Amino acid sequence: MSVTELKEDVLEKITYGFYILTTRVSRTELSTREKDYIAAGTISWLMQTSFEPPMVTVAVHKDSDLNETIGKAGAFAVNVLGKDDRSLVDDFAGDSKIDGEKINGYHFLKGTETGAPVLDRGLGYLECKLMDTISNEGDHVLFIGKVVNSQLKEPEHQPLHEWETGKHYGGFAE
Amino acid sequence: MSVTELKEDVLEKITYGFYILTTRVSRTELSTREKDYIAAGTISWLMQTSFEPPMVTVAVHKDSDLNETIGKAGAFAVNVLGKDDRSLVDDFAGDSKIDGEKINGYHFLKGTETGAPVLDRGLGYLECKLMDTISNEGDHVLFIGKVVNSQLKEPEHQPLHEWETGKHYGGFAE
Repeated sequence: MSVTELKEDVLEKITYGFYILTTRVSRTELSTREKDYIAAGTISWLMQTSFEPPMVTVAVHKDSDLNETIGKAGAFAVNVLGKDDRSLVDDFAGDSKIDGEKINGYHFLKGTETGAPVLDRGLGYLECKLMDTISNEGDHVLFIGKVVNSQLKEPEHQPLHEWETGKHYGGFAE
Repeated sequence: MSVTELKEDVLEKITYGFYILTTRVSRTELSTREKDYIAAGTISWLMQTSFEPPMVTVAVHKDSDLNETIGKAGAFAVNVLGKDDRSLVDDFAGDSKIDGEKINGYHFLKGTETGAPVLDRGLGYLECKLMDTISNEGDHVLFIGKVVNSQLKEPEHQPLHEWETGKHYGGFAE
């Protein structure tokens, strides 16, 4: 086994959940578009990084639509998937299809603080104001967001854990 | 329920594992000491943040011994806890006691690439070279490390998940 394979294995022992990351750029900031631009995608690489103020950090692939859009929007929302939300993992893994008030067939509302889409699925969501963007030699960008609004919709439900799905984030679907 | 409580609840639906973070500053860099200085502690806020090169990011409380020591060492190790390693979560939650080749009663070796202590418990470990340190208004510091060495000791064992322990990282034990 090569050193690279060993590295991969230890890294795959890190524990994650699944989240749908969403963001929206208003059409007023996009002179070439008649509609707001929305990006959404499944992510695993997310964690809290401060209690006071509450902040989270998320890693997004450099080549992804989310990366470009979050930078322009200055905000994002995190929709936390529960055990009943497995289908969303794959449904948000590729390009997003926006149709009226649906993304990839799932209803969403406009987050009151950031305008980012918040799904009517999942245990709850966080709306985050982008505080810092960290880009280095790695293939992902780190977005640090301050939580400016949140709603817990399913307090008794358990989050979906990566290990129980048999799916492991293996990079960006080109 | 206040907005703060709602925020806390959604944040507590984020999924984590448990890890022992370790670092060592050589005595040659510490004119006031006759021994190397070692810091170790239980953490949950850790995630991979790049495939190529392999990198991880960890959030450490600003007031912790680990924060000061990692900055001086320029390196750290991540020891991934497995389901048999529950006792380490509490044993590394407070101040560390170094006694010869033991930290808090657990044997360790010196990581070959970074000198950081690597425990003989856990599924495996990552040795990381510190690439970047991010400090903002939050109460934790982000350390971004490039994986320069790793060893998977227990490939068939499963990692310990926070939810199954009934313990949730609630801040730094002062």
